[in-house]
Amino acid sequence: MELTVFLTPHAVTERDVEDRCVVVIDVLRAASTIVTALSHGARAFVPVPDMEAASRLAMNRDADSQLLGGERFGTKIDGFDLGNSPLEYTPEVVGSRAIIFKTTNGTGAILKGRGARNLYVASFLNVQAVVDRLVADQLDVAIICAGWRGLTSFEDTLCAGMIVDRLCQAVELDTLPDPARIARRLYLIAAEHLEAEIASSDHARRLVSMGHEADVHYCSQVDLLSVVPAYRDQLLVVAPPGEDPAPGRV
Amino acid sequence: MELTVFLTPHAVTERDVEDRCVVVIDVLRAASTIVTALSHGARAFVPVPDMEAASRLAMNRDADSQLLGGERFGTKIDGFDLGNSPLEYTPEVVGSRAIIFKTTNGTGAILKGRGARNLYVASFLNVQAVVDRLVADQLDVAIICAGWRGLTSFEDTLCAGMIVDRLCQAVELDTLPDPARIARRLYLIAAEHLEAEIASSDHARRLVSMGHEADVHYCSQVDLLSVVPAYRDQLLVVAPPGEDPAPGRV
Repeated sequence: MELTVFLTPHAVTERDVEDRCVVVIDVLRAASTIVTALSHGARAFVPVPDMEAASRLAMNRDADSQLLGGERFGTKIDGFDLGNSPLEYTPEVVGSRAIIFKTTNGTGAILKGRGARNLYVASFLNVQAVVDRLVADQLDVAIICAGWRGLTSFEDTLCAGMIVDRLCQAVELDTLPDPARIARRLYLIAAEHLEAEIASSDHARRLVSMGHEADVHYCSQVDLLSVVPAYRDQLLVVAPPGEDPAPGRV
Repeated sequence: MELTVFLTPHAVTERDVEDRCVVVIDVLRAASTIVTALSHGARAFVPVPDMEAASRLAMNRDADSQLLGGERFGTKIDGFDLGNSPLEYTPEVVGSRAIIFKTTNGTGAILKGRGARNLYVASFLNVQAVVDRLVADQLDVAIICAGWRGLTSFEDTLCAGMIVDRLCQAVELDTLPDPARIARRLYLIAAEHLEAEIASSDHARRLVSMGHEADVHYCSQVDLLSVVPAYRDQLLVVAPPGEDPAPGRV
């Protein structure tokens, strides 16, 4: 099995993702929010590339069954129902609803990988569930870290490293390319003090300064949830457990 | 002093480099070749963005005083005088000559940083000389790693980490942003076995498979040379020792 890691999404081409399992990581906070909301009964996420697309979808939505969620640079967007804190996405709020979703980094990374055979969303909350899917799918893997405005972020790199490390223990991998080795090494040094390491990242410190300390703590929990969000027909939905790999492109 | 590291050049904007000292790293091999050739008496390098620009300059050149050098994906370009092996750039070949230079990753990274107050080129060969310049200049620093076709490369990240680590010991730095911390950590783990670590990188293994093992060994030597290439008036030339920072943009 071949395993590639992109520490930021910019260099990802269609060819890098075709016929692969793609894993999109955005620990703080889009991926953690998507995993949490789907665990809490949300029907689906509709990731959109920009505000214009979000507004277009929002105009025709059924406000009872569809919510608008997301943020720009860490702040809830005016007129949106929800921000990007996973703690807002409670069962009462999101149960049976779809969420039209726009964030600074996460949704763009998801859209970069949409030509993949299978696309999954990962955060620390559902690492093992994602690893189990990758092992079951038996396809080459490309992990895309969302990062922060084009830059490599510490917490996404750590999460990628954790996935790489667990995959190395579960399956036979080809020689790891540089970015995968970098991520794994960083994770192995940080593994003993993971929550403190995540809290030391630029993004965590930015969120804490905006009053989102509880989010950082929540998003640092490993394997709290077993849901794997999968991209199908332009939606992120819960991948049913044990499902076969998609026969064609998603 | 503020210190930023870009693990690949793609996200670098004009604003990121203005009023800063920019350090461009491309260990294998553009930076090592430039440092070596300038140490061996080459007059200057003319970094060009593409083959078209190289051909245009080459047509009007004086073949006695100007050479064409560079590579595409590790291979010397047809019609060029020199490839991208630092070992080709001997005093006999390059003494008093200018080199029109195009490489896969390095020259693009240099051109990304050209709006800087001062732009220097670094490899393991001249790390301490570059650090001394940065300390003397007393400006904020942005380190740009050339990487490989848009991806983070291990050896450039290690070299950036070494510069970050030495700067941390020499001056008072603001909190390091994520990519600078990532680079420093990787370097600190690798420091004891630096040559073996460089040799394990994707790029080194690719060069060895093409017969360039001697280049990898040569480029792994730390502080062999004291020349600091600086970008002035579209040329890379030797920065005179102890020179004051440029008064305006370079």
